[in-house]
Amino acid sequence: MKLIIDCMGGDHAPDEMLAGVIAAHRGRAADCEFLLVGNENALKAVAAERGYDLSPFEIRHTESVITMDDDAMAWRGDKKDASMTVALRALADGEGDAVVSCSNTGALFSGATMIARRAKGVHRAAIGTVLPFDPPVLLLDSGANVIVQPDFLVQFAVMGTAYMKALYGLDKPRVGLLNNGTEEHKGTELQQQAYALLADCPNIHFIGNVEAGSIPLGACDVVVTDGFTGNITLKAFEGMGKMFSKKLKGLFKSGLGGALAYLLLKNKIKELRKSFDASEIGGSPILGLRKPVIKAHGSSKEKAFMNAIYQAKTLASSGALEQMQADMATLEAAKKTAAGGEENAH
Amino acid sequence: MKLIIDCMGGDHAPDEMLAGVIAAHRGRAADCEFLLVGNENALKAVAAERGYDLSPFEIRHTESVITMDDDAMAWRGDKKDASMTVALRALADGEGDAVVSCSNTGALFSGATMIARRAKGVHRAAIGTVLPFDPPVLLLDSGANVIVQPDFLVQFAVMGTAYMKALYGLDKPRVGLLNNGTEEHKGTELQQQAYALLADCPNIHFIGNVEAGSIPLGACDVVVTDGFTGNITLKAFEGMGKMFSKKLKGLFKSGLGGALAYLLLKNKIKELRKSFDASEIGGSPILGLRKPVIKAHGSSKEKAFMNAIYQAKTLASSGALEQMQADMATLEAAKKTAAGGEENAH
Repeated sequence: MKLIIDCMGGDHAPDEMLAGVIAAHRGRAADCEFLLVGNENALKAVAAERGYDLSPFEIRHTESVITMDDDAMAWRGDKKDASMTVALRALADGEGDAVVSCSNTGALFSGATMIARRAKGVHRAAIGTVLPFDPPVLLLDSGANVIVQPDFLVQFAVMGTAYMKALYGLDKPRVGLLNNGTEEHKGTELQQQAYALLADCPNIHFIGNVEAGSIPLGACDVVVTDGFTGNITLKAFEGMGKMFSKKLKGLFKSGLGGALAYLLLKNKIKELRKSFDASEIGGSPILGLRKPVIKAHGSSKEKAFMNAIYQAKTLASSGALEQMQADMATLEAAKKTAAGGEENAH
Repeated sequence: MKLIIDCMGGDHAPDEMLAGVIAAHRGRAADCEFLLVGNENALKAVAAERGYDLSPFEIRHTESVITMDDDAMAWRGDKKDASMTVALRALADGEGDAVVSCSNTGALFSGATMIARRAKGVHRAAIGTVLPFDPPVLLLDSGANVIVQPDFLVQFAVMGTAYMKALYGLDKPRVGLLNNGTEEHKGTELQQQAYALLADCPNIHFIGNVEAGSIPLGACDVVVTDGFTGNITLKAFEGMGKMFSKKLKGLFKSGLGGALAYLLLKNKIKELRKSFDASEIGGSPILGLRKPVIKAHGSSKEKAFMNAIYQAKTLASSGALEQMQADMATLEAAKKTAAGGEENAH
């Protein structure tokens, strides 16, 4: 297994990216080969400073970087030779099994879709976000496709199911359709049509509509929605998390009583913090591609990037993408049979 | 000022509704008259049991009740004489200045729109929800209109501005458009068109797109969105609130250390709880009507219902609805001038 790492995207590149690679290579990815894409001098400087041994890794030198301000199509223009673009091209050319990158979401998503390519029969790739709830919940699409068709949501359900089986060992991930009520008729035409298609979809365990409020409370394992609603839901969760984190801090900073209470609960608070720590999860998988691409957060440091590398490794070795393809084919076949049946009935 | 109270809707009717009326009448609504609509025998039984004096109130007897399971149009069918329907009719007939009801949201919204009627020029009424953040934020539409047009959102902004001025004394409420990013071009066609209209709208202070994550952190005072997205955002906030409340409880229930820490922080925790307590706010105003209608939560008890009554009183006496009408007229005039200008330019 060879992992292709874009070492230059992200707020803390290349230092923390390289630290993540070293940590993963010392840890659960010791059996992997690595292709590090980035500025060779910068990487060597970090390695010298931190005492990292780069000899186990293949390095591919690049000069330019796709930044947060770059356009989503920059990889096609003057950033043709940026680290992200070169990494995706190496994946497309079969030089490795997965890409991990902190580059800007729009550029990575469009680059991944068009360079590394969508899997056969997939209408649209989607960005999945694993929400750090108990149990974890995969939300997709969490922002890439602002407008979707009902059958895109069915494919998202198939992709999400395969992902949660592979990454979290779930037997029958519960799939919910994000809606403004649990009743079947709720939502706009999109949700109403998607509901009917999801109910008929083989190989997924569709539990019906879910409300946003029940997601943090364990209502389902996979939530499918359009990228507009998904992005807003994701950010609503994140914003509340930040606000509570502030309130919690304030509670324990209130005088001597607060300080004492903090000492009493220190370990429990650490546990609580850890349970909401997105860096424990890694990054966001771009699903629906021929090969795994993991979008790591732009602010990723060593731990988050290491976990994103583990995520890429697990996804590449799990057979999840093959499973997705098989399920997608079953879905297509079922649709054709249904269409044929309807025609015969006329 | 006369307040019309539907005493029969809600999970704890009529007991807690009557308790709320008594508390309000002993408190800040001592100068108001009340028309209590509901089952007279049931109200008298509660009064006898609790020692309430009903003599200051006018009671209008009704037999039937619109329940949570009733259809949104039930008030037009076999629930023509239900307490909610009678209360709204009394409002329409000029017998009082505002209605407060815990009845089912769909029925109250459609009944309010069609019996109490929309204000002149209003395309759609909207349900506003005051989110208990610091400072409070009015979210509208929070569920009534699943599909909206761009100009509905502009009217929501005008309504929300007048509401936050009147109820929270804000001078220039900051209005944000809920979107999946802050850049002007973000979102679907709805958001893009609404952005342009909001930017040109007189009498509001439009600050641009807001992401859901910045709402709990004080980004704006009024958030406008369609009822589908609004409902999902509202529930995402509520669900996170519930989850954190559980986690917080768990923290202080963890053995002797937890119990001791709780004692140390008791007052601070109470303060924190209170700051998120929706019952402190009251209910959700239905905005865009000729007269105020407050939807109190179905689970309201005395305090929440009392606060909903205060909300109705403040809204009815503030001149907010007249302000809304004036601003709506200014908006229409500006639109006509712009259209005329364009025509002249051709």
